[in-house]
Amino acid sequence: MSLNIMYDEAKKTVEKALLNSGLSPRQAEVCADIHIQSSADGVESHGLNRIPRFVDYVQKGWVNVSGNPELKCAKGAVENYDGHLGIGITNALFCSDRAMELAKEHGIGCVTLKNTTHWMRGGTYAWHMAEKGFMGISWINTESCMPLWGSDEPGVGNNPFCIAIPREEGPIVLDMAMSQYAYGKLGTYRLAGKTLPFPGGFDKDGDLTDDPGAIEDSMRILPMGYWKGSGMAIVLDMAAALMANGNSGIDIDNANSGSCTGCCQIFIAYDPYLFGSKEEIQSLLNARVNAADSTHPDKEEGHVYCPGERTMNTRKKSMSDGITVNENVWNQIKAIADGNLNITDVSSK
Amino acid sequence: MSLNIMYDEAKKTVEKALLNSGLSPRQAEVCADIHIQSSADGVESHGLNRIPRFVDYVQKGWVNVSGNPELKCAKGAVENYDGHLGIGITNALFCSDRAMELAKEHGIGCVTLKNTTHWMRGGTYAWHMAEKGFMGISWINTESCMPLWGSDEPGVGNNPFCIAIPREEGPIVLDMAMSQYAYGKLGTYRLAGKTLPFPGGFDKDGDLTDDPGAIEDSMRILPMGYWKGSGMAIVLDMAAALMANGNSGIDIDNANSGSCTGCCQIFIAYDPYLFGSKEEIQSLLNARVNAADSTHPDKEEGHVYCPGERTMNTRKKSMSDGITVNENVWNQIKAIADGNLNITDVSSK
Repeated sequence: MSLNIMYDEAKKTVEKALLNSGLSPRQAEVCADIHIQSSADGVESHGLNRIPRFVDYVQKGWVNVSGNPELKCAKGAVENYDGHLGIGITNALFCSDRAMELAKEHGIGCVTLKNTTHWMRGGTYAWHMAEKGFMGISWINTESCMPLWGSDEPGVGNNPFCIAIPREEGPIVLDMAMSQYAYGKLGTYRLAGKTLPFPGGFDKDGDLTDDPGAIEDSMRILPMGYWKGSGMAIVLDMAAALMANGNSGIDIDNANSGSCTGCCQIFIAYDPYLFGSKEEIQSLLNARVNAADSTHPDKEEGHVYCPGERTMNTRKKSMSDGITVNENVWNQIKAIADGNLNITDVSSK
Repeated sequence: MSLNIMYDEAKKTVEKALLNSGLSPRQAEVCADIHIQSSADGVESHGLNRIPRFVDYVQKGWVNVSGNPELKCAKGAVENYDGHLGIGITNALFCSDRAMELAKEHGIGCVTLKNTTHWMRGGTYAWHMAEKGFMGISWINTESCMPLWGSDEPGVGNNPFCIAIPREEGPIVLDMAMSQYAYGKLGTYRLAGKTLPFPGGFDKDGDLTDDPGAIEDSMRILPMGYWKGSGMAIVLDMAAALMANGNSGIDIDNANSGSCTGCCQIFIAYDPYLFGSKEEIQSLLNARVNAADSTHPDKEEGHVYCPGERTMNTRKKSMSDGITVNENVWNQIKAIADGNLNITDVSSK
């Protein structure tokens, strides 16, 4: 069962839950906004669904609410921070803001963050930069949950990669994990008794399958584009560790203290109006988007969208009609807000 | 039929062919090296196979051998060049060298290039930066040759995206186009009478197929990861145009003067030893690569490789046993070297 909750009502409850779990008023407000915005954008898995697990991580000490980004080194357009296992969202917002400050000064700004925690929806920080008028690129390394191409055991993180293009009509945002489907999506299809639209992994016999349950059993989710997503995942892992002088995916595996705990994150901001006027650049981008959106659809009444365009529609609908949330998840958040910190994670992973 | 030609012999012939087509001795030497190295690395499509078409483009005036990169604007760690439709390879090498110079000064360096021409193998410049000891990121926008997800007509470029990680034992290099298979690969499978290992596009009825000829007929190659490769392709196009203040893919379509003519290219270099010692960083990278390579294979006698590792093996073999080249292609290059500039492109696209 799903409920529809208006933004302000959701915010009051989530803030209270986060305050109860030990966050400061400012941390609770920022994190409530980011989680609720993700759900409002249609990304429930890392939005409201994730609140109970986040609270659980705080209780376990895997997220340190007193940890703040500490500048370790800097050179020119690059800064490197230690996140001290602080809150993933506030650490990442801080670093994306710093990347934009550096971009104002140097044209491009790059902030590399190590020892941080789960940043929730991958696209949040690229969206944030685009909404502030910058082009944003970001990625992360995570624990191994996907087999590399040619292997049958988890060997690399499903590391998301994001690029956001600022546009007055709404940013164009790539927010892309390296697997064809997230584990959460497999669960959604399985619970609905459906097969996947395309094969999403291997079964225990090593055959490609569109049966979500068979993939959950084998833990062999498929990299997007087979060898391509596998190659990109391992290179993003290495790039993040190198740039942040921090953990690689295997170090995160070995720490065994929750998803993304101790990971590296990269934030690159670029000033879009360095070389062209705002009018020129916006007109170029609009022409490109309009051309893409008006290519001939492959189905009658079909329509081609650029990444992020449908998100804006979902967001508008959520703001007017309320944000969709699973009833069990919402009851659990309300229980936390009422002071019950005994967490059982009822959300999909 | 294929021949095996030793590097130095290949270089003499290719240099002569390029001199005949109007390149300066320095241009001919650099371009000969890059084309032959691509073939030596196993990427024949953009190596020796591409020489006749390149010479043809020069004859048609689509590549201007007198065009050189001109600095248009600069700010901090970013420089923007106009390539004046000069030789794609020399323009791109110049810009990747400049990106490394900027990285030395600012930690990160970003060079954006507009109005340039085909750079041949996408990975060349990221490989170049990694071999010089920098982490490199590069991408390009190209003419529309792939349908966006949800469309049945070409609407976006098959824009390659590359990341290279410097490593003493050999760089780890992602060199990834956005389609599951290149058109060249479809032709190879069709000529061999084989089906593709996985579906690579749609037939004229709109059904996913592994029949390479059916995809060549429909021109509906499949983006890697379906909607994912489509989304990444359009965002890379916009990012390149925005950063270089240059053409988007649709402008390149409209110019109708050959593949990539007038495109934008982005070169980002990062100093890998900004925050960690060379020893620490190399040890981190080696541990990551070794862990990936030793994950359990999905087939008996299988082996997992990181991207670039097999390329190094192919390169070594080519340097000792000679470089594989299609006999028709080689005869055509020899004819150009003998002064016959009447080009019929016999290579696969």
